[in-house]
Amino acid sequence: MGYNEGMQSKWWGWGDSKKRYPLEQSPNFWPFIEARLGSLPQQQHRPSPREEIALPASRLHADDRTALQMILGREGLSTEPNDRLTHAYGKSYRDLVRLRRGEVPHPPDAVVWPRSHEDAQRVIDLATAKCWAVIPFGGGTSVVGGVEVPAELSDRLFLSMDLAKLNQVLDVDVLSRTAKVEAGIMGPDLEAALQAQGVTLGHYPQSFEFSTLGGWVATRSAGQQSTKYGKIEDMVIGLKMASPRGTLTVKALPARSTGPDLNGLILGSEGTLGVLTEVTVRVCPIPPQHDYRGVLFPSFEQGLETVRTLVQGGPTPATLRLSDVDETAALMAMRAEPRSAWKRLVEGLAKRYLVRGPAVTSPERCLLIAGYEGGQAEVMAGWDRVRSVLAENEGLLLGRDPGRSWYRGRFELPYLRDTLLDRGIMVDTLETCGSWSQLPELYRLIRSALQNALEREGGRGHVMCHLSHAYPDGASLYFTFMALQTEDTLAQWQAVKLAATDAILAGGGALSHHHAVGLDHAPFLPQELGETGILALEGIKQALDPETCMNPGKLIRRIGPDAPEKGTI
Amino acid sequence: MGYNEGMQSKWWGWGDSKKRYPLEQSPNFWPFIEARLGSLPQQQHRPSPREEIALPASRLHADDRTALQMILGREGLSTEPNDRLTHAYGKSYRDLVRLRRGEVPHPPDAVVWPRSHEDAQRVIDLATAKCWAVIPFGGGTSVVGGVEVPAELSDRLFLSMDLAKLNQVLDVDVLSRTAKVEAGIMGPDLEAALQAQGVTLGHYPQSFEFSTLGGWVATRSAGQQSTKYGKIEDMVIGLKMASPRGTLTVKALPARSTGPDLNGLILGSEGTLGVLTEVTVRVCPIPPQHDYRGVLFPSFEQGLETVRTLVQGGPTPATLRLSDVDETAALMAMRAEPRSAWKRLVEGLAKRYLVRGPAVTSPERCLLIAGYEGGQAEVMAGWDRVRSVLAENEGLLLGRDPGRSWYRGRFELPYLRDTLLDRGIMVDTLETCGSWSQLPELYRLIRSALQNALEREGGRGHVMCHLSHAYPDGASLYFTFMALQTEDTLAQWQAVKLAATDAILAGGGALSHHHAVGLDHAPFLPQELGETGILALEGIKQALDPETCMNPGKLIRRIGPDAPEKGTI
Repeated sequence: MGYNEGMQSKWWGWGDSKKRYPLEQSPNFWPFIEARLGSLPQQQHRPSPREEIALPASRLHADDRTALQMILGREGLSTEPNDRLTHAYGKSYRDLVRLRRGEVPHPPDAVVWPRSHEDAQRVIDLATAKCWAVIPFGGGTSVVGGVEVPAELSDRLFLSMDLAKLNQVLDVDVLSRTAKVEAGIMGPDLEAALQAQGVTLGHYPQSFEFSTLGGWVATRSAGQQSTKYGKIEDMVIGLKMASPRGTLTVKALPARSTGPDLNGLILGSEGTLGVLTEVTVRVCPIPPQHDYRGVLFPSFEQGLETVRTLVQGGPTPATLRLSDVDETAALMAMRAEPRSAWKRLVEGLAKRYLVRGPAVTSPERCLLIAGYEGGQAEVMAGWDRVRSVLAENEGLLLGRDPGRSWYRGRFELPYLRDTLLDRGIMVDTLETCGSWSQLPELYRLIRSALQNALEREGGRGHVMCHLSHAYPDGASLYFTFMALQTEDTLAQWQAVKLAATDAILAGGGALSHHHAVGLDHAPFLPQELGETGILALEGIKQALDPETCMNPGKLIRRIGPDAPEKGTI
Repeated sequence: MGYNEGMQSKWWGWGDSKKRYPLEQSPNFWPFIEARLGSLPQQQHRPSPREEIALPASRLHADDRTALQMILGREGLSTEPNDRLTHAYGKSYRDLVRLRRGEVPHPPDAVVWPRSHEDAQRVIDLATAKCWAVIPFGGGTSVVGGVEVPAELSDRLFLSMDLAKLNQVLDVDVLSRTAKVEAGIMGPDLEAALQAQGVTLGHYPQSFEFSTLGGWVATRSAGQQSTKYGKIEDMVIGLKMASPRGTLTVKALPARSTGPDLNGLILGSEGTLGVLTEVTVRVCPIPPQHDYRGVLFPSFEQGLETVRTLVQGGPTPATLRLSDVDETAALMAMRAEPRSAWKRLVEGLAKRYLVRGPAVTSPERCLLIAGYEGGQAEVMAGWDRVRSVLAENEGLLLGRDPGRSWYRGRFELPYLRDTLLDRGIMVDTLETCGSWSQLPELYRLIRSALQNALEREGGRGHVMCHLSHAYPDGASLYFTFMALQTEDTLAQWQAVKLAATDAILAGGGALSHHHAVGLDHAPFLPQELGETGILALEGIKQALDPETCMNPGKLIRRIGPDAPEKGTI
């Protein structure tokens, strides 16, 4: 029984339709939002009723339906509007706005569910012969337009290939600490199967509950504990992909010296070369302990210095997540108020007798959530190390409560977005990364680009950021921005996104650290990789998918250097 | 002043022509060799005198010479026989045999030395226009035929592009622990420049003294301390390459999610896509201590279990190098005898009172060299961990002497090969890797394939192996094989190599873990990567080097899926 089995998914938003972000205990939240954004509109912005959304008819011919059913069985194909609707978009701000408005002009013509690698390969072979387009679909949580039909290409027949039935852990090699797993498995089901054998992948992106191993690999995803366990590309040692030019199998090996890395060539290919059906990953023993705590710093710069120090020496942290002053303020506003009189008393006393050091009194104070995982000795050594470096940057240890609270809610924030959209608020996130030397300037550039763009577009806005995914050589910056929706909120969003992307590229940051390229970042990829880099990627595309059947329009927009399509989507 | 500046290189063998492997203190060495291989021939096999080797004339036209000199200056081009000879081969057994015989039928027509990236790009542009072939040349230490002109393609004009003048460390970012370095820098010069700023790359392949950063990257090299510092592909975060389709720059970033990894696509491309001119690498602080020691085990299996245990938990070792019984015997035979009466007395007493445990008495005893590097606490913790797991597999700690001795001589063994060739002995090495579950069977398969092939080819032989480059999920196996040369020793070598490669592939090991593909492994690459994998690599080649100017015949033998050259070199 899968983790999400029986759950009613929210077609217009995040996750479980029965679940809402718990704001009841946070009386300061809405006042904070209104103080930053201005008064909220009175009426709620609810999604259009499902029954009012009319999808265009599927263009799949009866004989093609039969051909697909011959491969997949009757259960393996659907042209039902509900299935086509839930496979039409990912979960980006643009997606949710369009879904709520009932704007679904280009859903896939059919959804197919292969039961095996062979099914997937046969469907791709058929699609190639028929010149259909195939969009691989894992959990559908892309925030860059990775799973939608690009409007410009919508004259082609599109299949959405949902990997949900390829959800088995095939083999766990406990001695070698590797696991061979079908690519469509969801995060919780993967971890349940692995942990039953005493091991874990340790990969927990925010989308963990609703995203798949194949999706993580296809987009170079990063988990919240990536500093310890690595990004997904550090875990993959072998894979299997069905492509228009046949099956590509990369045998699982600890390392190799046999040409360019084929794993690395498929990692991040976003379904444009084929569909991943199987992945072999490194796993490790379940850490007996995890210990997450909060630390307060008088400034972002001091927090950043501490994070760098911690990741460049001593026991490897699992998580280092440093909020800037505006995110710290938002987190404080979201804190649940103590419920009982007794708790209020305790908190009051604590406040009175707490050291009023600079970390508490500074108007620029910033919260760090730090976590260590492993054996008791390792975790203790980690916190000893934190204590030994805190003073240098006036950090104040807040104890386990903030850590527990973050850990508990670490997959919940996307639910809050639905609540914000209900209230007419535009909210989105974007991320990049850079070296430690680059980061302060990169942070400044992006933050002011966002603030200026929000002002230009609609007036006030709230911009906040945290540093996460720390490496010895740098870290990721993850921004959240909000404003009241304007009438044309997609244009509003587009303008802000463009300003931020320009700032990222001007500051030498990564176009994306872990959200991938999809449709949204594709126009900027030539700037990121250069003309010759794009040529190389096009060469691979041309070799494995010359008919451009696989997720066309994503990642690489051109269809080969000399093709007439050059320069167009 | 470079480390090797002023040194007279041995054109027919390894390194410094003034240096020989010190066997004077090892009276047991030659008796051991004769016991294993049979009586050695009386006469020495010396290389042909240099003056007897006649090279074919360079085919470079006068006007082309002028055109190249316009780009490179007068000093930047040579068609001198000596320069063409020293750029004709790498340092494989085949290379040394042919050099000693004076067989150099296809040297490059000219050697060019670019002084900058721009020089390299302009030469490649010219070569592309003229349809010349260009072989990038770093230290010329390839053992797989990576830098030679393939006989089958020798009707083309070949340039050897020597990167020796691109040897500067351009920037060390101590804060971010990264360094931007020109690709032609030799190991010792790189480390000298880095260590002057308090950091190290930690990459020490056996060829370290005579190989280059660009060569390491182009071949996915592994250093002897790879367990701590990573393989070269773990260190590269950005690079610059001159290709026939222009300059490819991968900007240096800690991580990214922007499509397939372009660094990973160039790493291991062996000069077939372009010439690397600049690499940005992760560096780390110079470890204040290194502590290498010997440990003896009663069997290879018990040593292997211990290595796996050490790499799967506790402080990360720098080196774990476990010799099998035959390599342990060879190492014992190579040991210098104590020189003084006093030393003999001490050794005698030590022998008498040493615990006669199974590690000492077993006829199957195996030597492990283990090393930890880092701060004192880390190194001590490492050895505490070793001590805590030794008993489980009856390991006996031998102390620092064997460790020091290995560390001191870690770059010396290639000199011994020259001595063995002088005595008419065929000697070569090959390597692979596999998961911990695979390794015992893989070891057995390769070992018996080598033994059988040596017997078939010439009678007796000596096969020995060590496990090194340990990862949590597996390790490398590194074999050395020897026999008396037969009359046609290249055919003898070829047969043995083929048998071992078949065994490696049958056992599911890597075709190569760190020696790359070159000419020697190219025929097996389709078996390793599969038809679709090869198609993908050909796609990149086709995109960046459609005229196949860059190191043709290496790595990928075909010239694009639909080209008439298909199936030929």
